[in-house]
Amino acid sequence: MAENMIITIGRQFGSGGREVAKKVAEKLGIGFYDKELIALAAKESGLSEELFEGIEDMSSNSLLYSLVMGIQSGNGTYYRYGDVFNSDGLFRVQSQVIRNLAEKGPCVIVGRCADYILREQPNLMNVFVHADIAWRTKRIRELHTMEEKEATATIKKTDKRRGSFYNFYTNQVWGNVNNYHLSLDTSKVGIDGAAQLIVECADLLK
Amino acid sequence: MAENMIITIGRQFGSGGREVAKKVAEKLGIGFYDKELIALAAKESGLSEELFEGIEDMSSNSLLYSLVMGIQSGNGTYYRYGDVFNSDGLFRVQSQVIRNLAEKGPCVIVGRCADYILREQPNLMNVFVHADIAWRTKRIRELHTMEEKEATATIKKTDKRRGSFYNFYTNQVWGNVNNYHLSLDTSKVGIDGAAQLIVECADLLK
Repeated sequence: MAENMIITIGRQFGSGGREVAKKVAEKLGIGFYDKELIALAAKESGLSEELFEGIEDMSSNSLLYSLVMGIQSGNGTYYRYGDVFNSDGLFRVQSQVIRNLAEKGPCVIVGRCADYILREQPNLMNVFVHADIAWRTKRIRELHTMEEKEATATIKKTDKRRGSFYNFYTNQVWGNVNNYHLSLDTSKVGIDGAAQLIVECADLLK
Repeated sequence: MAENMIITIGRQFGSGGREVAKKVAEKLGIGFYDKELIALAAKESGLSEELFEGIEDMSSNSLLYSLVMGIQSGNGTYYRYGDVFNSDGLFRVQSQVIRNLAEKGPCVIVGRCADYILREQPNLMNVFVHADIAWRTKRIRELHTMEEKEATATIKKTDKRRGSFYNFYTNQVWGNVNNYHLSLDTSKVGIDGAAQLIVECADLLK
């Protein structure tokens, strides 16, 4: 594996992309950022974690006008009201956190447009994990005890929001092969298989 | 590898997808169909090879009204004028050839909407090979001694036609991750690396 490799993993809802990412990080012995990233982002900006949770699955129009008028982050950066308390501001803060993480050392970052945010980074490997809708529906039903109809609707709604969020901030199309170096179907290769292939691919990028 | 596995490989122009496919077939010791497929299609339908060559890279509006009024294929199927001598008819004949090849045994088939034509086939693995435009331009220039501008224009024009051909006949979007089980960027992993990953992936589908 290349030194200081950063692996970003975008994923369709229910595809198991987060589990795949976790396994990849474990196999390679490198950092893993998903919920942890949110926590770091919150710490960095001085905002509470709840503000960041779900930002990616939120409509880009949902402005979070709330709380205080301005805030100073842990590293002294001053964020104005308009910077922080709408999704643009949250995106900017989160982008800075992602860049800081990438500087710290090799890691796997799930979602959050990290592929785009880190596009100038050397040794970047962008992965997209997807799966057919029937397999994802079955998986979501098992994980959350949902009716089939509800599970399918949740998948479609969440993917639509993830796609809108990605397209809005990157001017690229979520799930287009050109954005990724490797795309995998977990309903075909399985979660363990996907992790194995990503590690193989990372090994090729010496 | 699953018994009777069929691997289809779609590819962007200049990405080296054909070379990748050839290496995969060699590594797995299975059939490889590209130009060979065209020859078979010609034999099957009784048409000359030239009629089939380049069908995929041809505009879907280019109707090939020419030659005789009707034709009987090698297996006795009778194709009418309208069936055979426009791109729809060529597509139908070619689809039948692809289905026949898939029945004969495990193989790798390059392009020609084989992923869609064989969508009901068990043990089907659909791959898409792509690469960034700079890498493809460099490669095409080396292979065909072209100026940079001409190479880039050829890549864009050919991809546009391949995309239109695919979208027209499949009602799917060429290069959308959902159509493929594995998508790879040869400018990142190399041609040998791509072949290696495809073989690894095929091994997972036991």
